[in-house]
Amino acid sequence: MTSGLQMSRRIRRTPFTTRVEQNNVRGFTVVNHMLLPKAFEPSIEDDYWHLKKYAQIWDVSTQRQVELKGPDAAKLVQMMTPRNLSKARVGQCLYVPLVDETGGMINDPVLLKLGSDHFWLSIADSDVLLWAKGLATGAKFDVKIIEPDVSPLAIQGPKAEDLIAKLFGEEVRAIKFFNFGWIDFEGTKQLIARSGFSKQGGFEIYLNGSNLGGRLWDAVWDAGQEFNIRAGCPNLIERIEGGLLSYGNEFTRENNPLECGLVQYCSLDAPVDYLAKDALLKIHKRGIDRVMRGILFDGPACPPCGEPWPVFANHTQIGQITSAIWSPNLNQNIGLSMIEKAFWTEGQKLQICMPECQIKNGTVALLPFV
Amino acid sequence: MTSGLQMSRRIRRTPFTTRVEQNNVRGFTVVNHMLLPKAFEPSIEDDYWHLKKYAQIWDVSTQRQVELKGPDAAKLVQMMTPRNLSKARVGQCLYVPLVDETGGMINDPVLLKLGSDHFWLSIADSDVLLWAKGLATGAKFDVKIIEPDVSPLAIQGPKAEDLIAKLFGEEVRAIKFFNFGWIDFEGTKQLIARSGFSKQGGFEIYLNGSNLGGRLWDAVWDAGQEFNIRAGCPNLIERIEGGLLSYGNEFTRENNPLECGLVQYCSLDAPVDYLAKDALLKIHKRGIDRVMRGILFDGPACPPCGEPWPVFANHTQIGQITSAIWSPNLNQNIGLSMIEKAFWTEGQKLQICMPECQIKNGTVALLPFV
Repeated sequence: MTSGLQMSRRIRRTPFTTRVEQNNVRGFTVVNHMLLPKAFEPSIEDDYWHLKKYAQIWDVSTQRQVELKGPDAAKLVQMMTPRNLSKARVGQCLYVPLVDETGGMINDPVLLKLGSDHFWLSIADSDVLLWAKGLATGAKFDVKIIEPDVSPLAIQGPKAEDLIAKLFGEEVRAIKFFNFGWIDFEGTKQLIARSGFSKQGGFEIYLNGSNLGGRLWDAVWDAGQEFNIRAGCPNLIERIEGGLLSYGNEFTRENNPLECGLVQYCSLDAPVDYLAKDALLKIHKRGIDRVMRGILFDGPACPPCGEPWPVFANHTQIGQITSAIWSPNLNQNIGLSMIEKAFWTEGQKLQICMPECQIKNGTVALLPFV
Repeated sequence: MTSGLQMSRRIRRTPFTTRVEQNNVRGFTVVNHMLLPKAFEPSIEDDYWHLKKYAQIWDVSTQRQVELKGPDAAKLVQMMTPRNLSKARVGQCLYVPLVDETGGMINDPVLLKLGSDHFWLSIADSDVLLWAKGLATGAKFDVKIIEPDVSPLAIQGPKAEDLIAKLFGEEVRAIKFFNFGWIDFEGTKQLIARSGFSKQGGFEIYLNGSNLGGRLWDAVWDAGQEFNIRAGCPNLIERIEGGLLSYGNEFTRENNPLECGLVQYCSLDAPVDYLAKDALLKIHKRGIDRVMRGILFDGPACPPCGEPWPVFANHTQIGQITSAIWSPNLNQNIGLSMIEKAFWTEGQKLQICMPECQIKNGTVALLPFV
């Protein structure tokens, strides 16, 4: 189910795209008007086993940064997210749902606090810069909002730490999960965070300066030889098994953070003020009607989920699978779906309607799968 | 230079994608998180000659609508664009650059005035909805902003009018260029505009109701048989020859509307108030440093322009080609580039640096080429 992707300036290349192309990339997708590699030869399954054992280098430049800087930066970022940021420290990464005044999800970036009036939002696929600029312009906030020349390069997998320590020094081992520090690279200071869109551990280097892209890739690549490094990308099997949600796939502006399972990032009683507060308090009081769940379903390996697959129980639609793949680990297909309240209990039996009216039997599972 | 495009729910299919796939589509791009067909078998050149002679049906659903409705809708839309909208009539389509407070281009949609407090912005590739919602939320405007279930289907080419008249009645012939009217389709009222992203004439049906997509396509297709209809898409040869610019390709937030050649859409003296006014007045007074031009350059046919090609004169860079293709009509390559002031005269000689250090000789041309 791949088709040709026509290239143009509008679909931006990254500082690492040339290296990715030299490493058997098989397909791309487009995130934030930029290329994200999605599969490498020989297969996603092969990459899955490799990721769980060694180290991989991922071009995740599409995680664009929206920089907020100035006297009203902290006020603006708190306005955008229900997460209580009053105790956020410089050097911390925070997963922050961005929610509009109706409770709809705008994005779910990682917030990096660079200073008391200086933040980066490392975003999923929507133009958060326009949202932030619109809010700031409309409310006459004193804050400068730009997309800096910063492109994250992820090193993921159990060998990532040894690789990074070898290349940039033992100090990086002290960086805690979802914190960042600084490394030297060719006379520049670069931000490095212990984070990444996998559950295998690793780091992300927020490369500041596109011109250094090839050299940074090569340095990681050379140091990674002894760790059996390979070019990879966020792995669909590992992502679904780990219950990692993807904005635009699992949830959109039609969804609120409570049904996405993000209640722990929503400050519902603290004296914190944000755009979505009234809407979320109302939804919380009323109770949610559906929630994000896993679905286990029969083989053989399902095709790629290019558009949602309706999910039924008792002859009514109770959800839709938005991402799915064969899990070689669980020896079953696994999918992600919002599921209506009456059916969201673990073990609930259901049917999935796949393309060409193929009906599969499945059951509700809690996330993460593994 | 095509690569596999990995499909997922985030890259939305349109109400017409299935039909497009049945008609020898060769590649897609992604615009507004949705699939836009970019090439069909046998070739772009073949489609070019066909488009100039017959009628084509184009899935341009990616021209998403941002609906602004409510007491402050007119105020908001005027805030976003430098074009004077005080005399806009219901039933009119207006090309409106959207510009931020620094003079940077946010998008260049077509505005449809549906009522005095009801507008659609038919957008190019950026999340205008987030920009508009941000501004409205920040400024506490009373306006509802949504993306309705509306997907434009274009019928372009010299035979388009006869086709549309045959299918929907002779009255459509009375619709003037950049105006819209209404047609009946299977018991629904649908908006039809005389517009489209080509210079060959034609209409766009703003289909309201995805469920009708297949049936609308089939009705146009059947009526089009006698006009030698074919599935197509915005044609790169015809677009560049006609000097039609594409947001994200020819210009971005880094550009102002004056250097994009859009001064006729910028109200610089009228008593109209909009966000960009101070910035544009300042730029206008100072004078622009560069302007959008065409470039004619030597054959053979150039490769697809996947990233900007630097343009030089007197050993300094004076611009970059952002879209280019072989023109079978002019028997030369044609490209689009911003060109620095000292070099923007028609006939100026220059050099283009294509991939793998291929140097081509070219000259500056005025737009449109033909």
